[in-house]
Amino acid sequence: MTTTTSPLRIALIGTGFMGRMHTHAWRTAPRFFDLPLTPEPTLLVGHRPDATAEAAARWEWPEHTVDWREAVERDDIDVIDICTPGQTHAEIALAALAAGKHVLCEKPLANSVAEAEEMTDAASRAGSVAMCGFSYRRTPALTLARELIAAGRVGEIRHVRAQYLQDWLSDPDAPHTWRLDRDRAGSGALGDIGAHSIDTAQWLTGQDITGVSATLRTFVTSRPRRGEVEGLGGVAADTSDRLPVTVDDAAAFTAHFDGGALGVFEATRLATGRRNANRIEINGDRGAIAFDFERMNELEVYDAAADVAQGFRRVQVTEAQHPYAGAWWPVGHGLGYEHLFTHQAVDFVRAVAGEIPVSPTFADATQVQRVLAAVEQSAAHDSILTTVATAAAPEHPLEGNPS
Amino acid sequence: MTTTTSPLRIALIGTGFMGRMHTHAWRTAPRFFDLPLTPEPTLLVGHRPDATAEAAARWEWPEHTVDWREAVERDDIDVIDICTPGQTHAEIALAALAAGKHVLCEKPLANSVAEAEEMTDAASRAGSVAMCGFSYRRTPALTLARELIAAGRVGEIRHVRAQYLQDWLSDPDAPHTWRLDRDRAGSGALGDIGAHSIDTAQWLTGQDITGVSATLRTFVTSRPRRGEVEGLGGVAADTSDRLPVTVDDAAAFTAHFDGGALGVFEATRLATGRRNANRIEINGDRGAIAFDFERMNELEVYDAAADVAQGFRRVQVTEAQHPYAGAWWPVGHGLGYEHLFTHQAVDFVRAVAGEIPVSPTFADATQVQRVLAAVEQSAAHDSILTTVATAAAPEHPLEGNPS
Amino acid sequence: MTTTTSPLRIALIGTGFMGRMHTHAWRTAPRFFDLPLTPEPTLLVGHRPDATAEAAARWEWPEHTVDWREAVERDDIDVIDICTPGQTHAEIALAALAAGKHVLCEKPLANSVAEAEEMTDAASRAGSVAMCGFSYRRTPALTLARELIAAGRVGEIRHVRAQYLQDWLSDPDAPHTWRLDRDRAGSGALGDIGAHSIDTAQWLTGQDITGVSATLRTFVTSRPRRGEVEGLGGVAADTSDRLPVTVDDAAAFTAHFDGGALGVFEATRLATGRRNANRIEINGDRGAIAFDFERMNELEVYDAAADVAQGFRRVQVTEAQHPYAGAWWPVGHGLGYEHLFTHQAVDFVRAVAGEIPVSPTFADATQVQRVLAAVEQSAAHDSILTTVATAAAPEHPLEGNPS
Amino acid sequence: MTTTTSPLRIALIGTGFMGRMHTHAWRTAPRFFDLPLTPEPTLLVGHRPDATAEAAARWEWPEHTVDWREAVERDDIDVIDICTPGQTHAEIALAALAAGKHVLCEKPLANSVAEAEEMTDAASRAGSVAMCGFSYRRTPALTLARELIAAGRVGEIRHVRAQYLQDWLSDPDAPHTWRLDRDRAGSGALGDIGAHSIDTAQWLTGQDITGVSATLRTFVTSRPRRGEVEGLGGVAADTSDRLPVTVDDAAAFTAHFDGGALGVFEATRLATGRRNANRIEINGDRGAIAFDFERMNELEVYDAAADVAQGFRRVQVTEAQHPYAGAWWPVGHGLGYEHLFTHQAVDFVRAVAGEIPVSPTFADATQVQRVLAAVEQSAAHDSILTTVATAAAPEHPLEGNPS
Repeated sequence: MTTTTSPLRIALIGTGFMGRMHTHAWRTAPRFFDLPLTPEPTLLVGHRPDATAEAAARWEWPEHTVDWREAVERDDIDVIDICTPGQTHAEIALAALAAGKHVLCEKPLANSVAEAEEMTDAASRAGSVAMCGFSYRRTPALTLARELIAAGRVGEIRHVRAQYLQDWLSDPDAPHTWRLDRDRAGSGALGDIGAHSIDTAQWLTGQDITGVSATLRTFVTSRPRRGEVEGLGGVAADTSDRLPVTVDDAAAFTAHFDGGALGVFEATRLATGRRNANRIEINGDRGAIAFDFERMNELEVYDAAADVAQGFRRVQVTEAQHPYAGAWWPVGHGLGYEHLFTHQAVDFVRAVAGEIPVSPTFADATQVQRVLAAVEQSAAHDSILTTVATAAAPEHPLEGNPS
Repeated sequence: MTTTTSPLRIALIGTGFMGRMHTHAWRTAPRFFDLPLTPEPTLLVGHRPDATAEAAARWEWPEHTVDWREAVERDDIDVIDICTPGQTHAEIALAALAAGKHVLCEKPLANSVAEAEEMTDAASRAGSVAMCGFSYRRTPALTLARELIAAGRVGEIRHVRAQYLQDWLSDPDAPHTWRLDRDRAGSGALGDIGAHSIDTAQWLTGQDITGVSATLRTFVTSRPRRGEVEGLGGVAADTSDRLPVTVDDAAAFTAHFDGGALGVFEATRLATGRRNANRIEINGDRGAIAFDFERMNELEVYDAAADVAQGFRRVQVTEAQHPYAGAWWPVGHGLGYEHLFTHQAVDFVRAVAGEIPVSPTFADATQVQRVLAAVEQSAAHDSILTTVATAAAPEHPLEGNPS
Repeated sequence: MTTTTSPLRIALIGTGFMGRMHTHAWRTAPRFFDLPLTPEPTLLVGHRPDATAEAAARWEWPEHTVDWREAVERDDIDVIDICTPGQTHAEIALAALAAGKHVLCEKPLANSVAEAEEMTDAASRAGSVAMCGFSYRRTPALTLARELIAAGRVGEIRHVRAQYLQDWLSDPDAPHTWRLDRDRAGSGALGDIGAHSIDTAQWLTGQDITGVSATLRTFVTSRPRRGEVEGLGGVAADTSDRLPVTVDDAAAFTAHFDGGALGVFEATRLATGRRNANRIEINGDRGAIAFDFERMNELEVYDAAADVAQGFRRVQVTEAQHPYAGAWWPVGHGLGYEHLFTHQAVDFVRAVAGEIPVSPTFADATQVQRVLAAVEQSAAHDSILTTVATAAAPEHPLEGNPS
Repeated sequence: MTTTTSPLRIALIGTGFMGRMHTHAWRTAPRFFDLPLTPEPTLLVGHRPDATAEAAARWEWPEHTVDWREAVERDDIDVIDICTPGQTHAEIALAALAAGKHVLCEKPLANSVAEAEEMTDAASRAGSVAMCGFSYRRTPALTLARELIAAGRVGEIRHVRAQYLQDWLSDPDAPHTWRLDRDRAGSGALGDIGAHSIDTAQWLTGQDITGVSATLRTFVTSRPRRGEVEGLGGVAADTSDRLPVTVDDAAAFTAHFDGGALGVFEATRLATGRRNANRIEINGDRGAIAFDFERMNELEVYDAAADVAQGFRRVQVTEAQHPYAGAWWPVGHGLGYEHLFTHQAVDFVRAVAGEIPVSPTFADATQVQRVLAAVEQSAAHDSILTTVATAAAPEHPLEGNPS
């Protein structure tokens, strides 16, 4: 009987967008899935007392505080769910693991490889579950893709083609935000959305990226300060008062995988017309899969077997036999973005109960961060670029890498 | 009256696939377009006498020969149309230009930048028309894309995303062909199909590529010798008798354009499931265009202007107001691959008559070749690649570009 | 402050799929929308005591009962939410309205036009809100479509093309269910899914259907009894033990709208390959819209204004400016099926508070039922069909409607 | 050797759009296909001497005349290719068949069922080939569809869903043409484009339509007289000078097939945004196919066999193994509209040589005409329509079919 399972008491740290999403996920999961433990939202931790109280009331958390250490120290808390900005992750997670708590930590795992590795070490020593929130792994279509690849239906992988295209910054007068400030955000499109592509690619293929050749680009180098209009807050008040953009608008890199695949990655927030095209295509010698999050309920699958009628199949990943989908609606009735988080909550609970392995582990997330670091490092050597000869110097047309 | 225009007498060199295509184009063009001169197929030049005679009979060429110099030397020939393998282009084109002939030369213009530059110099000195056969420029949808970009509807260009994906080599036992032998083909996917992407990208944007960072990859390093079965010819007879593949199967590179755009290019013949996906997407601050040759009659167009209903429009480029389309069928009745060559013939004739500028010039084609050379050069420096740190050496996670 | 709004106390009748969906909606709505009243799930009404208790526990309803009259009679209940089978709707709704309750009633409103009209009369006399659950009206893309049509962007409507295609019954050995029994289900594909198309079409166009010409078809006239395997329940145990199918598998009809539009409707559960293709396209003299629920986050919009680049736009209806979407995720992050119910809960609450009109009213739902009745009636006169002459009787090829 | 095959001497009657298309087809066919006979354009027959002479010169017909009887009477003519308006077909075809000529006759076969049946009788008595030009049968994707259906991959057919949607008349001020005059055109959207849907549906399924229930509609009842501006000709000069539209703008009908399938057909020239959407979908118990001529090189194919990854496959019908496609370009390089006519020429020549059966026969075309007649007849009985009850008469809501 569902209602008699033991509780799993959650403390959630963070009252922003992700805090609300996680709250919704913890509450929704047990209504649609049979879980071995019942997640019980217990303590909400915020930053400012008023906002924290308001969030707790609205989201129905019975207790709240502004001191995250209280959550770590209380014996009646089982899980620390970290939804705070990246620079705070390491400290909280390390304390939580040391206190024996299970930890769910939003991506990026940390703001540096060193921190991430320290967290991974701590997780490997701890007896509790430590999971990082690369939520796209819980898209049913991508989970199905992984199963198909693992079953050999794509064969030996040659190509990984991953694009994460957004356009909310394509207007040069879109206002400045903290995401455009390197000190606060750490990275731009690369870390924000490119990180998802990297994790997805490595997870789907079961291959790690071993080398990259990268370019980062900032097309719009300053943006108007966001208007601080009383009671409104949000629109740009004065386009002549501009703040510098200190992160990348776009990242592009080729990548080598340890299993032999060749990767081509692109992440941008200036791809006009593309709202959230988190795409990946993988081609092997036996087949291929293709995905675009703008149509998250579909997976395109190609089978190279001989047949007079071959072509990419548009699979609606909404059947009872598909990952996660059986818990939801009749076939053809799609899921939305938040289901990724509900599925994440489900898998977290099941991992705590020992039913399934943890995925992604802190080690997985650290590998993503190593790739991000290599991309940044590669992009810093722009002299590596091979220049195209010009007609002005026709005498040595084939020479001339000036680096 | 169409039938009273002066003749433009053609000598075509080459009896292979492209020879047939050009023949069809020269004959079809005046039946559907009003031309200032009437192309008159006059002399077909082949390699072997028998095959040449047979082709001439089938394609209805009144005269034929196996000596291309005869075509160049005859006074009653106006145009030399070169459809031979790349290594012969320079010699023929230089002779033809010296003799005052108009020249249409298939791509690649030559097999080296040096040859290409010599041909460009000759063309610039000649009073005749010299055009290179990058036929995709004659796709109505791409011509429309160029007009929209030129009219400012895409705005300042940030992204160029070009993929040319085929899969006819994805089976490791697909038989060897001359295209996989560096000595004969010069290059693999890069030169064969990547060259089209490069030309299209530079032509659409009006920007030249100035630098690249590239990777080339050969996934299948040997392939079975094609069976020489009497009367059949074509299927692989013995998969244990394998020949080495000495060109790239796939190419990937990032590129910088002189106008500030960032390019990501990929060309492969192992993208399982993609038959001929010659794709390009361009994003600017005012809009975007996207194209895939697998749906050659469509152009996707995005307008970033404020509206409650914005999104990529699927434009069927078959209206009377669209480039070339008015000469053909009612709206919605599409064109096929060979129309590119008919349009090329039309534009060549009009350029000869001085009605429109030559496009692409030999100089345009030489710029493509320079980019190809830079890609090959960049790919040869694989040490440039930045390695991803490994967990085995966590003490220096951010170091380690070994180059 | 959200948490200080007055409560709106709900009694929900029904513990099946729809009961769970409505529960989820009542709980989710106030977490994402600022509502004038706070819905408060108060009393769950079921049929069997055990199942009702279990559902109440799992879905966190504080009280439960198996007597729906208790809900109607209690003073501390504001809303009766009816999620029971169709034949019970009229009795419950009439009692609830008489008791002054607000009523949300699942579709179909009733199992006969007479009952529906009685309910409509009662609703028009009552001072409370009475709404029918045609939830597709709450699809953001369809709501946007209606706004565009109302704003004149489609112009004078000529065509309505509505298809509701499913395939869960295409296998002739798919097991029998109560939905295939006329006594229990009332109707087959027509009433189950065709009713949605009718409501959507009338609502989008603002036009009522005044006449129909219809065909109903049962392709598979018997189906295996569903296996009652202990502990499993669901798969067909014995395909030789078959029960008759007494409802339609498919319905097709043409329709005249009072505003002059011509409709073509089709509903089927045997359209192999179509999971839940609830499609509608509307063409007017100024533009068109097209929708398919299999891609519920997209609306295709065509503008007939002169432009060199016209075509259907794929609008992702996920922008802050779009109906309902602003309350949810960043642009491009789609919604799923259950959001229709959350939006329905939101609109119900707002209608109770007098902020927006009720939609759909019981009168709207009754008009749907009248169309369904006309379809059944028309289909019963199959002799109306005009026969195609045969070669066997060529002497009178144009005569011969035998009706 | 191709060039040594016997000639097949053609006389083509008609110098309009279709005349040009057929000319192009006769010339192109032998250049790309190995044919048992070589079509030889011999005599062009027109209406006005000047226009005929000009067409003959431009299209390179060696002889021309304005007397079609000359073509029928000459011994050195093998084929009469009829591209004239429908009302002339019967007389010419009967004379040609009587003279022992092979006949290719454009659709519609005739303007009445009686004429069509007379032609069919004549064809059945003649020893020569008589074929009707329903050219869509030669679309490679549709030919493949037929082969898949014949091979059982769709199984028992339940649904036929055919739409032919165009929009060139959606503007109420689009000028009048002869196609809108019943005396000249015979029919509107129904006969012009709906006829194609009917032929395609019957041919694909191998089932004849036996009964229909139809509606015809004229939305725009008058249109401006086309301006006869000197030297331009074509645009509407004066929108106040309007001519009546005496044919249907749109047709909609349900149909019963003799094999049990249920058809839903719609043809319109006012479907704003749809340029030439000649669509058909067929659902059976084992699979489905779907086609849209706007993407004529693609066929969507669904296989209902159990698999975790099922969905419609987008098959690019451009492979060497596909119908007709092997004669053309490499895979993925599409064909256009005129290839239908080239394939028709190929099949006609092969039928003359006895290699393949004639398709479509005059009998097939006559069956189409019988369906068209039944549709017109059904639509004339609009009283058959079942009216939807109104709220004004709630006492008898279920009555009222006036038939």
